[in-house]
Amino acid sequence: MSTYPLSQLERFTKEILLRIGCPEKDASTAMEVLLSADLRGVDSHGVARLSGYVRLWEKNRINAQPNIRIIHETPSTAVVDGDGGLGLVVAPYAMQVAIEKAKTAGTGWVSVKNSNHYGIAGIHAMQALAHDMIGISLTNASPLVSPTFSRERLLGTNPISVAIPAATQPPFVLDMATTTAANGKLEILQRKQQEAPYGWIQDKDGNPTSSPNGVKDGGALLPLGGDREHGSHKGYGLGAVVDIFSAVLSGANYGPWVPPFVAFLEPHPNPVGEGLGHFFGAMRVDAFRPADEFKSHMDTWIGRFRKAKTVEGQEKVVIPGDPERELEEVRRREGIPLLPAVVDDLRGLGERLGVNWDESQ
Amino acid sequence: MSTYPLSQLERFTKEILLRIGCPEKDASTAMEVLLSADLRGVDSHGVARLSGYVRLWEKNRINAQPNIRIIHETPSTAVVDGDGGLGLVVAPYAMQVAIEKAKTAGTGWVSVKNSNHYGIAGIHAMQALAHDMIGISLTNASPLVSPTFSRERLLGTNPISVAIPAATQPPFVLDMATTTAANGKLEILQRKQQEAPYGWIQDKDGNPTSSPNGVKDGGALLPLGGDREHGSHKGYGLGAVVDIFSAVLSGANYGPWVPPFVAFLEPHPNPVGEGLGHFFGAMRVDAFRPADEFKSHMDTWIGRFRKAKTVEGQEKVVIPGDPERELEEVRRREGIPLLPAVVDDLRGLGERLGVNWDESQ
Repeated sequence: MSTYPLSQLERFTKEILLRIGCPEKDASTAMEVLLSADLRGVDSHGVARLSGYVRLWEKNRINAQPNIRIIHETPSTAVVDGDGGLGLVVAPYAMQVAIEKAKTAGTGWVSVKNSNHYGIAGIHAMQALAHDMIGISLTNASPLVSPTFSRERLLGTNPISVAIPAATQPPFVLDMATTTAANGKLEILQRKQQEAPYGWIQDKDGNPTSSPNGVKDGGALLPLGGDREHGSHKGYGLGAVVDIFSAVLSGANYGPWVPPFVAFLEPHPNPVGEGLGHFFGAMRVDAFRPADEFKSHMDTWIGRFRKAKTVEGQEKVVIPGDPERELEEVRRREGIPLLPAVVDDLRGLGERLGVNWDESQ
Repeated sequence: MSTYPLSQLERFTKEILLRIGCPEKDASTAMEVLLSADLRGVDSHGVARLSGYVRLWEKNRINAQPNIRIIHETPSTAVVDGDGGLGLVVAPYAMQVAIEKAKTAGTGWVSVKNSNHYGIAGIHAMQALAHDMIGISLTNASPLVSPTFSRERLLGTNPISVAIPAATQPPFVLDMATTTAANGKLEILQRKQQEAPYGWIQDKDGNPTSSPNGVKDGGALLPLGGDREHGSHKGYGLGAVVDIFSAVLSGANYGPWVPPFVAFLEPHPNPVGEGLGHFFGAMRVDAFRPADEFKSHMDTWIGRFRKAKTVEGQEKVVIPGDPERELEEVRRREGIPLLPAVVDDLRGLGERLGVNWDESQ
């Protein structure tokens, strides 16, 4: 695995997005959102997906010049129609609407339809932090997850992100799939042909399996909890709430009707809505108590958990967001490692669209 | 285990609450909230806790005549000071504030300090349903849960409830602890001296254990996921968000400072806030799209999941809220089963406060 400087990936990604017709500003926004995944270590959601977005655009499933707009609103809510645009562009727009609502109403809540894959959930929630707001970001996704007791794939990995500002401590940033393991983790095991822990996936009949190919072979990812005895009905319930807030509130597709990200699978012939859906929230901290007071207590909260006594063999208790932030510091400095297969794919994409992969050319 | 008519429990509970000085209206509200747990099958949170509340009152840790009030607000938010009142009374007040905010601002969000145990989370979220609103209810709780990698008890079982209205289908009502198993489930195993599944608890050193007494012996409940490999950092993250929304936003105690519900444990000598905290949300469905449209799609969502193909040996996929609603129908008709130990405790409580347990007396 070789390492590439961030600047190279930035230039390449932005040029590709310009080539498919994105306006300059949108190409910058989408590039930053996409690469935030590589920086924060969610490699499955970063530049490795660039050619996936292009393939969707080639299939006319992404609108590179969308008219993203608010179609309904109240003082603290809005519904945004993404007009089939890149989720990478639609999401920052919608999150900004939530932030603006929060400035006047205390909080802002935006449900989005007619969008596409939006990258990592966390980057959108974090948009609120600079405004001394708590940010919330949810999205539904390609159906790969079976509810407890089912052998059908009816939900996506439907992530939940919550970003909370502190004073001297770095912010608290939860960013989690509502499944035991994210699909990206499974893809890593597939490449290495290593067994998956029981509780991550089931086979096509709904039996527990440790085969890393279980999902490819018609099986499913399992909701957080893994099985009923360990609370998988809770992971399923959370994934369901994410689906409903993102899509039933907005008018997007939900459950098994969510259009798959991969271009080789066709969208459902009888959709129940438009595109896929997201949900964003912004809460002004000082809509509850003075921001300084809140952030100082967040420092106390984080400090107390950070210094909690550990079990033997563990160095420290992790604050949500710490590993991603620490990795981002390293990768900004030292570059981003990419698998040879990803580099080959990007180089081919560049050749197809007339963009140089290598800096030197 | 004998069964008792709801009317007997209602009369007894309300009279006890009047005896400790609750105003008539508060006694009715608290009684209804408390008994909703018995009706819905969360037996650990119902009338079995009545003497626990009384013991807290005897220790001057509950104010039977609180001046519950809004101490800060914006168009879509409020902070409520529960004035040390019963959570069973404070919570319905605060949820009503959220609902009133939602009527004008589209959504309402209320963080509460200086409260106490509020019964089951679900009953408060469900308060929104009659208004065609989505209801959300969170609370922190006595520290019994260790974050991933820790052997300290720093979080409560911190539940999340979300109630969503449908048209012809019954509402979707998620009501879940953010731990693998709720403490009540463990108490049942303790009484029967049966082993707990691995992944529910750890011992005082943080090792996995199946002893049902693990928590009593200084161990801890585990966050949803059970261990790191199965995503316990996600359950921990969710429990943390519940703690922060409920207490850091409001000015209540958080983490290990949350005052324990049991009267034999003293509150922390150096509290970081007042009482324990809750968080409530109400979102008007028609702040996003017409309510009929939304509820009709909820019917489609629920119908699709309800008829999902099951794994062998399972009859159906469960919609969150179904089991509790079905049990409530039975128990309203046939009465509520109580363990002999609970009946003895209630009878003793009645004798102490001059309230007859038996109907016939």
